[in-house]
Parts: sequence; C-alpha cells; structure tokens
Amino acid sequence: MHRNIRLLIAYDGGNYLGWQRQQQGKTVQGTIEQQLTRLCNEPITLHSAGRTDTGVHALGMVAHFRTQTTIPVVAFFKGINSMLPGDIRILCAEEAPLSFHSRYNAQGKTYRYDFFTGEVQLPATRLHRAHLPGLFDHRRLATALAGLVGTHDFSSFERTGSRDKNILGGRGAVRTLFNVCCFPQLGEADCWSLRITGDGFLRQMVRIIAGTLIEIGQSKRPEEELAAILSAQDRSKAGLTAPACGLFLETIYYAPPIFQSRVRP
Amino acid sequence: MHRNIRLLIAYDGGNYLGWQRQQQGKTVQGTIEQQLTRLCNEPITLHSAGRTDTGVHALGMVAHFRTQTTIPVVAFFKGINSMLPGDIRILCAEEAPLSFHSRYNAQGKTYRYDFFTGEVQLPATRLHRAHLPGLFDHRRLATALAGLVGTHDFSSFERTGSRDKNILGGRGAVRTLFNVCCFPQLGEADCWSLRITGDGFLRQMVRIIAGTLIEIGQSKRPEEELAAILSAQDRSKAGLTAPACGLFLETIYYAPPIFQSRVRP
Repeated sequence: MHRNIRLLIAYDGGNYLGWQRQQQGKTVQGTIEQQLTRLCNEPITLHSAGRTDTGVHALGMVAHFRTQTTIPVVAFFKGINSMLPGDIRILCAEEAPLSFHSRYNAQGKTYRYDFFTGEVQLPATRLHRAHLPGLFDHRRLATALAGLVGTHDFSSFERTGSRDKNILGGRGAVRTLFNVCCFPQLGEADCWSLRITGDGFLRQMVRIIAGTLIEIGQSKRPEEELAAILSAQDRSKAGLTAPACGLFLETIYYAPPIFQSRVRP
Repeated sequence: MHRNIRLLIAYDGGNYLGWQRQQQGKTVQGTIEQQLTRLCNEPITLHSAGRTDTGVHALGMVAHFRTQTTIPVVAFFKGINSMLPGDIRILCAEEAPLSFHSRYNAQGKTYRYDFFTGEVQLPATRLHRAHLPGLFDHRRLATALAGLVGTHDFSSFERTGSRDKNILGGRGAVRTLFNVCCFPQLGEADCWSLRITGDGFLRQMVRIIAGTLIEIGQSKRPEEELAAILSAQDRSKAGLTAPACGLFLETIYYAPPIFQSRVRP
C-alpha cells in the first residue's frame, strides 16, 4: 500500500544550512528525513514546496513523502516531534491524495521579513530579526510597495549566478507579486515587518527586496528609484541583500479544497 | 574623582547561570564586570537592583558601579556593547548621583511571565516562552488575580529553604503586589502573558504564582483555592514552579526625579 503524507513544518533556521539536504552539514530536510527513515524503517525522501537558504526560518513549510508503512498518521505529528530537536516542529501531518505534490500544486507563498531599526537590539529577539539601524519611516515606501505588485521581470532582485539563463526557458525571472506591505510590530519600538505574497520567488529575492525597501525607508535612496531598478534588470542597481535571520516563510497556498497551509499568525 | 555610573541592562538568560557572579560558570554580572574591568582598567563591582535565577531574562535590569576612570559615559553604552556577547546589551548608561543605589532606592519591580498553552510550540519562540500545554481560559483567573493584589505573607509562594527564618527579621515573607494581570498575546494563538508588579519578590515567587495561576486557568484547580493557598503559608499548597525560560524582569521603579527604568514594551 502506498501512502502520501503531507507535513506542515516550522523551524528555526539559525542552526541549519538551509532546507535542502546536502552531503556535509546539518540541514532541515536531512534532519527530518533521518528521523522519518527511523520511524518508517524504510528510506524516506521529503519533497518540499520550496527551499530556504542558510539561516532562514519557516512557520509554514509544506512537504510530502511516500511511504509503505502502516503507522497511523498521528505518529508523523506527535511521534516524530519527540524525535526531532526543538528547533524543528511538525505542526500537522495528514494523509494526502497520491496526486498531491507540495511544489507542483503550490499556487503561491507568503514571506515575512522582520527587522529592527533602533540602535541597540534586545537580546531575546536578536536571532529572529535583522538589525538594520537607521531612522525608518514606512510611509516613505507607499509608491515603492505599489510598484512591486504585479507581474515583472525581477532580475534586479535575484542573486547573481543563480540561474543559467541559456538553459532555463519558461518564465525566466518573471514572477507575480500579489501583495507587498510594511507595518510596524505593535507594542515594539523600531520593529517592522515586510510581508510579501507572490506566485513564486527567485533566489534571495525577498531579502534583496527587503534590503532595497529598507534603504528607501531610511532615506538612503529616493522612493522613485524602485521603478528604475526593476526595469534595469540588473542586480547591481538594487540594494543590499538583507540578513537571513529576519526572513520567515509564512504560508504556502494551495487551491482549496486540496489543502491550505496554516500558520499561527 | 569618584563617579557613579548607572546601567540599564537587557539580557537573554538562557545561556547564563543567573545574574549573580559565582566562582564557576558563566553569569550575567560576571560577564559585564569582566568587560567593565577591562575598559576602566580597574576592578569594577556591579550592584544590581536584584538577582535573577538561572535562565531568567531581563528587559530592564538596573545596576550601578563606582569608578575613578575619566572615560566618557558613552563608552559604557556604545563601547561596552561591542565587547559584550549579543545576549547582553547595555540599553542606557548615565552618570548618577553618588548617593544612588540600584537596590536600596528601588521602589518596585515588574515581571512578565510568557507561556504557551497549545500542543506544538513554534521553534522561533521556544526559548523565551514556557510550554505548559492544556486548554487555558484567562477569564477563570479574575478572582485569583484580585486576591493576590495587596499586602500578604507570600510564604506559600517562596522556594523552600530560601531564607533562614530565625535570622531574618523585618518584613519576613510579607510583600505588596500592586497589580497582577493576565492577557493574551495579540495575534498569537495560545500565547499568554502574566504581568506582576510589586514592592519586592521572594525567591521564585513569580514562577510559583505563575505555575499556580496557570493550573487554575487550565481548570486543574478551582479558582477559589487561591485564598486558602495564601493563608496556609505553606509552599506545598501552591502549584508547580513554572519554568525559568518564560520569565522576564521588565522594569525597576525609582522615585522620580531620580531615575526611571525604561524598557521597550
């Protein structure tokens, strides 16, 4: 009997070399696969909705795996959490149709970028918020945020050397952003979040967008520059790549009634 | 020339054996004193408003020290932060009157206790929130919270063996609580805070109060029991000592115009 098990996963990326399994070094995928393999007593391969880079966190990553085991599905939730380190938690495990695929069926994703613009960062939150000091005014971002929404070639916001442009056909660097917003974190001085929802993201795209928007909010760039950066299709025109520790993969979207990635807000 | 320097300090207690310097093991006081001694080139002793136990965090600890150095006060803020690990931050450093004493002049303190009552705790906050699973209703606490406010003998909420009752005179275990409240953390499911303000606290008092209140909120004890626990003056009648990782020393109060401990909320 084949089963397809779908997992909703949260992790603190600070101790991991990203999601993707690799030969050397600790990764989130490798750590979960190792325990699933123990639990199922057969080799398990996880397929995720996407990858996250070194140090990036997730609140609602989705991944699935095939197994022949007859273990009740609750074991992939309660049982596996007791085998995993505390910085990785399975929030939900469900039987999925055999046709379900975490990546192919995903229709979009939301990322959140948390940052602190004050001078001295409070210790308890320092590992989950980027520290980018400098007077920040989110009202300076209105035009820039609106300009990012829609379908654009985001080459200017992609890590250089990420794709071999001769091989890849398809949509290239064209992606659609549905919503981009910036808001202060309630009750916390100088703490801000950017939230970006789109149909897909290029390598380091959210962090380069965040770095560029933060420079605009800190008056280091004029707000009008964003349109020119986009149309230049040139990474060197955009801002710094903001640090990984502020980035959270929040939600993966699937067409109802298939599945909805849920996340505690 | 003698100077009295007052520090406002935040720290992540997770990596420390509490505030107080000791022969073996890393403490917050020991770590700061070591760097101040380097900076001032003379032995520095910190006097704090109080102590925190192993694993307890602070957002607004106050401490002062005497020095003969002529280093500008900004060095005890900007300079020292570059010498300290990221889990300890000096938020403010000021010249204080020679008569100022962090402990003797303190008029009260506020502690916050953060806890999560859901089943699976999100990785990013696991080190700064206690995990006490079980359906929790803060409305069950109304009578108990009100009953704690005021001047009482808090022997039932003190770690046993903390004081030699034959030696200590004065107020014994009598303390005055000005305010005790419980509120949900906005935008986060199953996350709660208790905030307790009083003129002083016995050893582990906040954690034992938290443990007892959480048991009431989770229907493991009747709400009316709190009055009986207080009057029993017997530690064994109260609830569990809640874990250290949820406890934050938020604010120390001094009479204006002397000084006000500030903290980002």
